[in-house]
Amino acid sequence: MKIYLGADHNGFELKKHLYDFLLRSGHDVIDTGDLNRDPNDDFPQFAGRTVTGLLADDDQDAKAILICGSGQGMCMAANRFKGIRASLCWNLAEARSARNDDDANVLCLSASSLDTQRAQAILTTWLNTPFAGATRFKRRLQELDQLG
Amino acid sequence: MKIYLGADHNGFELKKHLYDFLLRSGHDVIDTGDLNRDPNDDFPQFAGRTVTGLLADDDQDAKAILICGSGQGMCMAANRFKGIRASLCWNLAEARSARNDDDANVLCLSASSLDTQRAQAILTTWLNTPFAGATRFKRRLQELDQLG
Repeated sequence: MKIYLGADHNGFELKKHLYDFLLRSGHDVIDTGDLNRDPNDDFPQFAGRTVTGLLADDDQDAKAILICGSGQGMCMAANRFKGIRASLCWNLAEARSARNDDDANVLCLSASSLDTQRAQAILTTWLNTPFAGATRFKRRLQELDQLG
Repeated sequence: MKIYLGADHNGFELKKHLYDFLLRSGHDVIDTGDLNRDPNDDFPQFAGRTVTGLLADDDQDAKAILICGSGQGMCMAANRFKGIRASLCWNLAEARSARNDDDANVLCLSASSLDTQRAQAILTTWLNTPFAGATRFKRRLQELDQLG
């Protein structure tokens, strides 16, 4: 799977870990920065760059992962974009639900609330859960893209 | 504080509980529905209605709370709107960070991942945490509103 991966300074270490994990798992990973740990970098820049890459990609199955300290800023920023369904997940049930019900195409993670093992387990569950595609789920996602 | 409170069918029971809790705490609560538990109602309608009410309110301190099964759909939908900073919180640290760093004005809650006591504790912490207003935080929120 093609996966865009971005983080600010607070997500930098977890991004490094997940980058290696995704490569080892055979995914095609595009690191959208930050490429150094710069305490003055701003999460909206990495969210914007990552999500713009994802939306422009011809691969309909491509996904993105965004990491900051709490995950909150990344989730706000990514969901500004029509066509993006960014999910902030902290357990396996949320990861399943975000994909199964809401066809999430972006996973946001909190570097401060999750250790690397838990983040990896959430990511794996999220990537492995297909969208159920039920009629009521599709209707809600159509309504979602008419908002804002 | 003036608080808009909306939920779909999966958030209906938790909304009832938090409505009573907020009233008892002396807040001015506007229930934006759903007013019955209808399994066919769609979260984007309640997110849109609630957030539109909040954005039109002259009270700069007004806030909103949105509840669905996972909280994910509500968070996607609310963040579609410029001026909305919707935070999906599952612990007290995330509630503090969302307000302190990101000046969140919407709290999204997962009815399936949280029991009522935990949801109430997160809500209380979120409402009681002011935005720190640091220069770097303000700069990031300005960048956030230029996205999408």
